[in-house]
Amino acid sequence: MAVSVTAALLVIGDEILTGRTKDKNIGYIAEYLTGIGIDLREVRVVPDVEEEIVAAVNALRQRYTYLFTTGGIGPTHDDITADCIAKAFGVGIDHDPRAVAMLQERYQPGELNEARLRMARIPHGADLVDNPISKAPGFRLGNVFVMAGVPSIMQAMLDNIAPTLETGARMIIETIEAEGLAEGIYAEGLSQIASSHDGVSIGSYPSFSTNGFRNQIVVRGKDPEAVANAAQAVRAMLLRLKADLAPL
Amino acid sequence: MAVSVTAALLVIGDEILTGRTKDKNIGYIAEYLTGIGIDLREVRVVPDVEEEIVAAVNALRQRYTYLFTTGGIGPTHDDITADCIAKAFGVGIDHDPRAVAMLQERYQPGELNEARLRMARIPHGADLVDNPISKAPGFRLGNVFVMAGVPSIMQAMLDNIAPTLETGARMIIETIEAEGLAEGIYAEGLSQIASSHDGVSIGSYPSFSTNGFRNQIVVRGKDPEAVANAAQAVRAMLLRLKADLAPL
Repeated sequence: MAVSVTAALLVIGDEILTGRTKDKNIGYIAEYLTGIGIDLREVRVVPDVEEEIVAAVNALRQRYTYLFTTGGIGPTHDDITADCIAKAFGVGIDHDPRAVAMLQERYQPGELNEARLRMARIPHGADLVDNPISKAPGFRLGNVFVMAGVPSIMQAMLDNIAPTLETGARMIIETIEAEGLAEGIYAEGLSQIASSHDGVSIGSYPSFSTNGFRNQIVVRGKDPEAVANAAQAVRAMLLRLKADLAPL
Repeated sequence: MAVSVTAALLVIGDEILTGRTKDKNIGYIAEYLTGIGIDLREVRVVPDVEEEIVAAVNALRQRYTYLFTTGGIGPTHDDITADCIAKAFGVGIDHDPRAVAMLQERYQPGELNEARLRMARIPHGADLVDNPISKAPGFRLGNVFVMAGVPSIMQAMLDNIAPTLETGARMIIETIEAEGLAEGIYAEGLSQIASSHDGVSIGSYPSFSTNGFRNQIVVRGKDPEAVANAAQAVRAMLLRLKADLAPL
């Protein structure tokens, strides 16, 4: 049985919940983690409210191998993620000399005011995560990785974090086009294949455009042979159905 | 004090957590609910796993005025949302004659097979939500609204649901461009304004493009006067800072 490394993502910010900002990080992180062999198992979005953030951090960090957070690490009063992480872990928080040094690379001495120094407040015991774009670092405390919300910065931080992560067997994904067959036509056959093939999960995904519905069947799993066998069974079933439907 | 009507959104589907499908519903629903005076307070994304869905439904429906779900109501074996809702509420589930009649509008008698009839499985006591696009209905049980995952269908269902919802005072949102001022320059002034203005929440949102950072300050609240006063204080502060920074 392949080792499973799991993760949750906590998106922090009123701006996502009001719809002002359309999140671009969930899909990116989901695809990234899947690609390196980490199973994203849950995502939550919470507002900039201390007790909500602390409760979500503690629920998720205990349940999964890793917890990633995005948002709330800037210099303004609504950036409370670092303090919430410290509170969730029950540790202190203070200006971290390593983080201050990083900010000094970006700001002239007179520019590094109290607000900007807030970005150097790091919970005790955390390791820093480099931010090549705007210098203010993310950090890791235990199994929790705290990243920026701005997508380009988050992505750079994730690139820095990835080599430090334990990863499991990579998910193998086969996508099969149903080409004109409706879900309701192949649902029964697909269900039989799903229940007779262990070690894979099979999904059916309709999408809708001006050309009508397009259905894709996705077979996922960590054992290449199991995925290949199930995908082959799906293809054979679709061929049989097409033959049945074809005019005599 | 304005009445507050709250909501959570539960996005159901492995395809979102693997990154295969990039969710488009969270941002849409967030903006829609905000626009009609309902505060979206939490979003969760969970996989197609019964116990995860049931646990999330029960956690969220008890905590907020409304819970909306997207995904998992099609005809295939991985569409388990309706059964999970029934389980979460401890009620039975069966083919609903009203839902069967809706499907009969779309399918010829010979086409309405067992898999398609799965889409007429509705928990006991639920009201149906019309689906003008592909007929298979969503439903409402208690304070939970179950919608499709395909964005165009979800949007049509939400339009049908909206008139039935209790709504609170609408959020008033003022967005102020910081026009060239860095967050670290106005953070202290903004914090003072935030703590001296009750009934509003103030956020600062950087975004990053090829032109560099763009900072926007957003003042939100339900009392028009409180929002206007706080927004005016923000504008005045930004003007003072610009004057201070201008060459003599």
